[in-house]
Amino acid sequence: MSEPLDNAAFDQLFRNARTYNEFQDRPLDDATLHQLYDLMKWGPTSANSSPARFVFVRSDEAKQKLKPALSEGNLDKTMKAPVTVIVAHDLAFYDELPRLFPHTDARSWFAGNETLIQTTAFRNGTLQGAYLILAARALGLDCGPMSGFDNAKVDEAFFAGTRIKSNFLINLGYGDPAKLYPRNERLSFEEACRIA
Amino acid sequence: MSEPLDNAAFDQLFRNARTYNEFQDRPLDDATLHQLYDLMKWGPTSANSSPARFVFVRSDEAKQKLKPALSEGNLDKTMKAPVTVIVAHDLAFYDELPRLFPHTDARSWFAGNETLIQTTAFRNGTLQGAYLILAARALGLDCGPMSGFDNAKVDEAFFAGTRIKSNFLINLGYGDPAKLYPRNERLSFEEACRIA
Repeated sequence: MSEPLDNAAFDQLFRNARTYNEFQDRPLDDATLHQLYDLMKWGPTSANSSPARFVFVRSDEAKQKLKPALSEGNLDKTMKAPVTVIVAHDLAFYDELPRLFPHTDARSWFAGNETLIQTTAFRNGTLQGAYLILAARALGLDCGPMSGFDNAKVDEAFFAGTRIKSNFLINLGYGDPAKLYPRNERLSFEEACRIA
Repeated sequence: MSEPLDNAAFDQLFRNARTYNEFQDRPLDDATLHQLYDLMKWGPTSANSSPARFVFVRSDEAKQKLKPALSEGNLDKTMKAPVTVIVAHDLAFYDELPRLFPHTDARSWFAGNETLIQTTAFRNGTLQGAYLILAARALGLDCGPMSGFDNAKVDEAFFAGTRIKSNFLINLGYGDPAKLYPRNERLSFEEACRIA
């Protein structure tokens, strides 16, 4: 049984965490990206399907490949971010199930059922994208997630010849708090929740 | 700038956190459910759209309403869980944007664009479901998320006459570690990630 984390952790993960548009000039090394994956990978997915695939776009060359897919409002901040993560999912994820979920024939639940494949990959790949955001915050990093871009262009530039499809993007680095916008409000418990 | 959380927090949120099938006989009171929402609500969504809606199914009567929608493998454990959260999303979420994202006319991006409405609600409602899982773990609670159920039956039983659609379920409580299955492996960094 676990005790609650402390208030400082609640603040870092949720209450004071913000979506950053600008980042400090401080690079992210390979070890930090490995540490990030090695935390987020433990988050739960349906039948341990783990469909998410991540491209950490860091080099100038890769940023230039990403550039034509970005919407105008997301262009400058993304080109300047230390890393932009392409959160994607592999529609062939079920081929890994004999290893990832070995106690039953889970592969057969999916093979040939394109609707279930698409829904499972999108839902669980998205969950894993959220795990990555929270793992980044746990590591003291900051995120700027976005869905304003041309998915087909990203898929062509980064995933041609595969069944991997882009989902959303996350700018990643150490945020610059001087460039934050005022925070928007959230729905109240009564507006978003019901106890039945 | 934040420092990384400590190893105990990494363990509680990710490394030692597990999907629980059975829970201790320990109820969750209203205050705990409010505390959970008041943490998770701060997680980022596209244009602060916050499409997720949550039903905390706790009473015997509400559990009985949920029962016919559950798949056989999820039936017993869900009926016995202290609370089962229906993670849903409101396809009318964009009507709240004048308040949630007031500095531009974000409502007009969505109204009439059914594909964008569906994709945005599903993606961001799923992100919020993941935030709820991580917020629960931060509070010392345990989760058992599931997508094996009949969404249409849940929608009819809980959301009739609305544009709210169920996404997935999360059993919630204080887990019983004696009833855990062995942990399945995850994909390696090299299998799931690429640094470009």
